[in-house]
Amino acid sequence: MDRSRSAMGAKTLRGEYFSSPEVHEQEIQKIFRKKWICVGRASDIPRAGDCFLHELEGESFILVRDDRGRVNCFCNVCRHRGTRLHEESCGHFKTGIECPYHGWAYDLAGSLKSAPNMTGVEGFDLQDYSLHAVPSVVWQGFVFINLDRDCTPFESCYGSILSRFDNWGLEDLVSAHRVTYDIEANWKIVFQNYNECYHCSLVHPQLSPVTSVETASNDFTEGAFLGGPMILSDNCETISTDGALCGDLFPRLSSEDRKRVYFYTLFPTLFISPHPDYVLTHRIERQSSDSTRVVCEWLFPQDVIERRGFDPTRAVQFWDLTNRQDWHVCELNHKGVQSESYQPGPYSNLESTLVAFDRHYLKVMGEDEGGQAD
Amino acid sequence: MDRSRSAMGAKTLRGEYFSSPEVHEQEIQKIFRKKWICVGRASDIPRAGDCFLHELEGESFILVRDDRGRVNCFCNVCRHRGTRLHEESCGHFKTGIECPYHGWAYDLAGSLKSAPNMTGVEGFDLQDYSLHAVPSVVWQGFVFINLDRDCTPFESCYGSILSRFDNWGLEDLVSAHRVTYDIEANWKIVFQNYNECYHCSLVHPQLSPVTSVETASNDFTEGAFLGGPMILSDNCETISTDGALCGDLFPRLSSEDRKRVYFYTLFPTLFISPHPDYVLTHRIERQSSDSTRVVCEWLFPQDVIERRGFDPTRAVQFWDLTNRQDWHVCELNHKGVQSESYQPGPYSNLESTLVAFDRHYLKVMGEDEGGQAD
Amino acid sequence: MDRSRSAMGAKTLRGEYFSSPEVHEQEIQKIFRKKWICVGRASDIPRAGDCFLHELEGESFILVRDDRGRVNCFCNVCRHRGTRLHEESCGHFKTGIECPYHGWAYDLAGSLKSAPNMTGVEGFDLQDYSLHAVPSVVWQGFVFINLDRDCTPFESCYGSILSRFDNWGLEDLVSAHRVTYDIEANWKIVFQNYNECYHCSLVHPQLSPVTSVETASNDFTEGAFLGGPMILSDNCETISTDGALCGDLFPRLSSEDRKRVYFYTLFPTLFISPHPDYVLTHRIERQSSDSTRVVCEWLFPQDVIERRGFDPTRAVQFWDLTNRQDWHVCELNHKGVQSESYQPGPYSNLESTLVAFDRHYLKVMGEDEGGQAD
Repeated sequence: MDRSRSAMGAKTLRGEYFSSPEVHEQEIQKIFRKKWICVGRASDIPRAGDCFLHELEGESFILVRDDRGRVNCFCNVCRHRGTRLHEESCGHFKTGIECPYHGWAYDLAGSLKSAPNMTGVEGFDLQDYSLHAVPSVVWQGFVFINLDRDCTPFESCYGSILSRFDNWGLEDLVSAHRVTYDIEANWKIVFQNYNECYHCSLVHPQLSPVTSVETASNDFTEGAFLGGPMILSDNCETISTDGALCGDLFPRLSSEDRKRVYFYTLFPTLFISPHPDYVLTHRIERQSSDSTRVVCEWLFPQDVIERRGFDPTRAVQFWDLTNRQDWHVCELNHKGVQSESYQPGPYSNLESTLVAFDRHYLKVMGEDEGGQAD
Repeated sequence: MDRSRSAMGAKTLRGEYFSSPEVHEQEIQKIFRKKWICVGRASDIPRAGDCFLHELEGESFILVRDDRGRVNCFCNVCRHRGTRLHEESCGHFKTGIECPYHGWAYDLAGSLKSAPNMTGVEGFDLQDYSLHAVPSVVWQGFVFINLDRDCTPFESCYGSILSRFDNWGLEDLVSAHRVTYDIEANWKIVFQNYNECYHCSLVHPQLSPVTSVETASNDFTEGAFLGGPMILSDNCETISTDGALCGDLFPRLSSEDRKRVYFYTLFPTLFISPHPDYVLTHRIERQSSDSTRVVCEWLFPQDVIERRGFDPTRAVQFWDLTNRQDWHVCELNHKGVQSESYQPGPYSNLESTLVAFDRHYLKVMGEDEGGQAD
Repeated sequence: MDRSRSAMGAKTLRGEYFSSPEVHEQEIQKIFRKKWICVGRASDIPRAGDCFLHELEGESFILVRDDRGRVNCFCNVCRHRGTRLHEESCGHFKTGIECPYHGWAYDLAGSLKSAPNMTGVEGFDLQDYSLHAVPSVVWQGFVFINLDRDCTPFESCYGSILSRFDNWGLEDLVSAHRVTYDIEANWKIVFQNYNECYHCSLVHPQLSPVTSVETASNDFTEGAFLGGPMILSDNCETISTDGALCGDLFPRLSSEDRKRVYFYTLFPTLFISPHPDYVLTHRIERQSSDSTRVVCEWLFPQDVIERRGFDPTRAVQFWDLTNRQDWHVCELNHKGVQSESYQPGPYSNLESTLVAFDRHYLKVMGEDEGGQAD
């Protein structure tokens, strides 16, 4: 246990951070239109023409792999009359992106290739009407986009954590199972819930035999990335309903890491939880001030998944139950902080990571320590 | 009949009182956060630890009976991270009030008794984190709360009516039946509907043989409490589908009161209708400017209810039908006054109590006669 | 083909015209409370006392035929306490209009004839409390109302088109079939969709064998009324699933018009599409900035409808399919133009009528060319 951890007497965020329309608007400007946002896994669109949609801040984006293997992101808006080009949440463009209204046709890199009946329209040039592109990048198999055209390059933002997951081969893992949860709670409450195990004994009785809050420590204690390991109990090989592995031990892990599960939050849209044999991920989508969608995936190596008899059920069931327990208390927490009678309360020393989360959040919001009660 | 009653040429309230967001906000400040609000019956929580929740102006409150028999009201918000402490609309706390998130535990008087893992947190003292309490009082078996910490004492507000219901033994009556209605109408329209019988012949044909608008008079004609008696027809002992009693005549009633039914409104949340053998109550909950919840109860003495063969159905059916007829015209009235073409119309002399209601309402809103057309 | 048609390099309307609350409010003031609004067919209320309701801008109106055969329009608001007088979307008043709350009774011309218990109310006079009337007119069997008491007379507004439909005997046609559609798109997008056939080849494959965009021309190219004819293919007598007539050729049509279908939009609520044997109409009801109700009717002469064996199914099926295809792309278009990335795009020369629509719309909104990108 990391004895140096301390909440330093800090208190929880003021109520306005969970309810005020102004804060919501500021978060759009300073976080969700400014930061790198995780939108999914590149392995979901393996072939040229494969695509999926992502909704962000009321906008629809098309993520599509082009003929050169790159993953591109375009606004889902035809340059003619603005029609939405694609409706289904995922799909495949056979011969490029064709508008269903008047047939304007773009290639997979977004260039307008043909527009029926536009010949002779004065001043019209195909080259002026490419799809609006949005910066995108693939890191460790995750697709990130950034709505700010002048954004800081991804590598600068994620420098401190860029190679953190190499030993788990995260880049090559694929999803064996996915569950989508809709939670009636502010997205920060979901982050705060993941960032502490103070609640574990009361909320997750099944977790106590597996690992203990006393074994938790942090290797990231400041900034956009927070978290650290917990140590598995002696009789557990991984976290699953019976404690036995569901896949293979990742071959490059140190002997120490073979007895650990790590819990990291990557501000503002991703949790990564490497286990000895799989990686659990939670992708966070703020839907509104009051609701959050979480897409949870259980990632394994492709060859493990394809192996006869592979069954991730024991890992899935354990975490699906745990997730639902968490969302329930998140919703109670969210309801409570909407009250006018709510006042910032004191953090325990088991909640030092939440203090760090709040500090980083307030800094990004341009308020430094102002929003944190003392 | 009270021949002195007159509408004095007054007109109905202006449309803004039924639709404008500003009025809604003013009502919160000047009425619903300022006045004593009826939230239920104390007999619903007879034992220490019994509780029910009440929602008021978006806030959740816990009403709980403590070990000394008092009914307390607390904000449903943990002092740690603000989590809602109780979810179910009613229930029982076995050993005090424990937060489901991190286990902070309060006694039934609201004092924080234990907080896990808070030892060593600098400046932390259990005594600083009692639940937020709200003034509450029990009168005639009704529980009232007041969101204004500097509120006028209940006894001062209700002085004129404090002992009005002694002869019916109201304090000891319990609910034999309860129906909850959700009405798409402003709460004032529900009050106005109850305050006149001008509509009875058209809307309630079943009421004419039982009692007549001509027999109505008022003993409260001004202020927060309004109403008076109507005289039962010769062949009716009480109001029920066949006119026969459902319980026993209340023993302390005068011979006059044994042939009367009274209809009182207690601004802004309660109607009390004493009958010769039972008391009908309507508790009014404003949900929004456009919707009102009404909880209607048929109260009888405990020993009558427990008697073999007791059956309140004939009283319930009569008033349930009457209620539904009323809500229907309330909803039509509400829709109409939303119209821009609506203008205050003239009250008849059978609506003098509505004129008094409007006058009191406008006075509470700080507008005196300004909102009343003339 | 009308070779003179040209988009003149114009671009589509800016995004704010499809989403901003200010534009929505301006449209109420400058269009929907100012212009003549089509609310239905007079043939739906043939007898004195027949009525239907119309909802417009949150207000409810009663359209009723009186004893002299006139169609009157009244606000659905009792002059006593503002109660809505009629609930059902259509119906029949047997003995005048009686308020269901307190029985105030009006005749079919809106005069208050009796008000129970109002005798002796000081200053009360029946004549002061007629129903609020709204200007209304019947033209070619369509009922129009105007919420502006100082409105320009209908005949002045519709002068250019007053006798346009005489040859189809539109005044005497009645509805053989009606379908109501609710579309999640701005009303202007529905107009723009109807005003061009550039989308026909992609969206309506069943239309190509029947008529072709190349045959389209316009006889109204400017102002509130827009559109013109398309020529039927040689093997088609009308537009129906098999190209054969569903009714009789209108006897007064020129030989030219027997091979044509006309498509006209009447700003801001009506499309009229005369065919050789029937007239298709679309009545447009703006529900909100984001949704539009369209009531589509297939009108035939009364004697044709009553004839044994008459069956409009082939005309209904053709246009019902076509309508649904249109609403689908309208909804995609609406979603796209909500995007911040949407910019006005270039119109093709096949969309010259849309340029005219936009120009007229902007003029009515008092913005002339300002809102049109160039």
